[in-house]
Amino acid sequence: MKVRVAVQLKGGILDPQGKAVEQGLHGFGFSVDKVRVGRLIEFEVPASDAETAKAQAQAMCDKLLVNPVMEKAVIEVVS
Amino acid sequence: MKVRVAVQLKGGILDPQGKAVEQGLHGFGFSVDKVRVGRLIEFEVPASDAETAKAQAQAMCDKLLVNPVMEKAVIEVVS
Repeated sequence: MKVRVAVQLKGGILDPQGKAVEQGLHGFGFSVDKVRVGRLIEFEVPASDAETAKAQAQAMCDKLLVNPVMEKAVIEVVS
Repeated sequence: MKVRVAVQLKGGILDPQGKAVEQGLHGFGFSVDKVRVGRLIEFEVPASDAETAKAQAQAMCDKLLVNPVMEKAVIEVVS
C-alpha cells in the first residue's frame, strides 16, 4: 500500500528554511505569512490493509523518519 | 487562508534522498519500496476564498517554489 508521511517542525520551533522562502516570496511581491517548510515522504509497504500499513509507517517514523523532539508527523495511507 | 503545497520530483527523475531513506529503512529491517522524499510548504495568504488562495499559491509555485522541469506540485487550500 502507498503511504504518505508529512513531517513538519513543531509550532514553537524556528524554521529558517520557511523564513528564507517567505522572504523570497515577499521579494517577488507576494503577500504571504507563516511559511513553514517540511518533508513529504512517500513509499510503498507490503501490507494487506490500511491499519497494518499505518502501523508500519509509524514504526518507521519512530526509528528513522522523524525527530520527535522537534518534529511532528502525519501519516496517511493513500491506497 | 491556509495553503499547503506538496512538491515531489517527477516520476522519472532519480531521487537520491529517497534512495538514502530507503536504504536506511532496509537497514532497520523494514520492507519498503519506492521511497520518494519531497517538500511540504505551508503558508497563509490573505485571500477571501479558496479559488483566489489557490491562484496565488499557483503563482508562487511558478515564480519560486517549484522547478517545473523536475518537480510537480499539488496545491491544497486547507482552511
